[in-house]
Amino acid sequence: MPQLLYLDDLAVGRKFATRSTTLTLEACKAFAAEFDPQPFHLDEAAAQRSVFGRLAASGWYTAALTMRLLVEGELTIAGGLIGLGGEMTWPRPTYPGDTLRVETEILAVRVSESKPDRGIVTARNQTLNQHGEPVQIAVVKMLVPRRPAA
Amino acid sequence: MPQLLYLDDLAVGRKFATRSTTLTLEACKAFAAEFDPQPFHLDEAAAQRSVFGRLAASGWYTAALTMRLLVEGELTIAGGLIGLGGEMTWPRPTYPGDTLRVETEILAVRVSESKPDRGIVTARNQTLNQHGEPVQIAVVKMLVPRRPAA
Repeated sequence: MPQLLYLDDLAVGRKFATRSTTLTLEACKAFAAEFDPQPFHLDEAAAQRSVFGRLAASGWYTAALTMRLLVEGELTIAGGLIGLGGEMTWPRPTYPGDTLRVETEILAVRVSESKPDRGIVTARNQTLNQHGEPVQIAVVKMLVPRRPAA
Repeated sequence: MPQLLYLDDLAVGRKFATRSTTLTLEACKAFAAEFDPQPFHLDEAAAQRSVFGRLAASGWYTAALTMRLLVEGELTIAGGLIGLGGEMTWPRPTYPGDTLRVETEILAVRVSESKPDRGIVTARNQTLNQHGEPVQIAVVKMLVPRRPAA
């Protein structure tokens, strides 16, 4: 069992890693067919004529895989990873064959004024490809419980 | 064929709608099993003990379905819907059985200085449930081509 982390454990600057995962062409196309059926995510010839230059993964597939990596990663928050929202950018496309991992850094920690048993943690989740280049940068706010009194 | 929209067509304040879609319990669980395998997205009993009170859809499923609705909706941008990033909040959970649709409003339009054949459009995509309550509010930046000279 991984150690459960509470608000009290998440000091600003603390970092967390995940394993990595490699995107297959088949899975990229399957996700796109279900959720983002645009030609540059489904068809190589159409993708060559698009701004991507070749078949690119949907940004929402990158986002969904990022979540999967986070859930299985070192940031094992008590009560789970519950996002309230955040700011997200895709500085470059993700392509089939890319290998992604996520690096998290804690940016801010705030105890709730109305509900002192919990708080809001701001974290930066950088999804990096095999060249160490960010393909998604998400600065997110998460709901995190405080450690219960012993 | 829907009319293709260029930067020149996207005046600030213009609105676009989508069809609606109803979430099934099975699809919510299948998405969560693949991308967000946390107990409150997979197991009713665990969800009852969580902050959600009952089994809730992954926010990333809401995001992915929002994209699907947008791709099939009225915002038929020439070259496709290409997001660069944005700010996203989930003001309330989405539950199986909810019926979602998306309302888009154009907030800003800017021609690129370095590449005058294209520009950046800022839009607010509100994903609403069957009660008209927002379950996701995304203010996104999109890459949009200008209308080519005739």
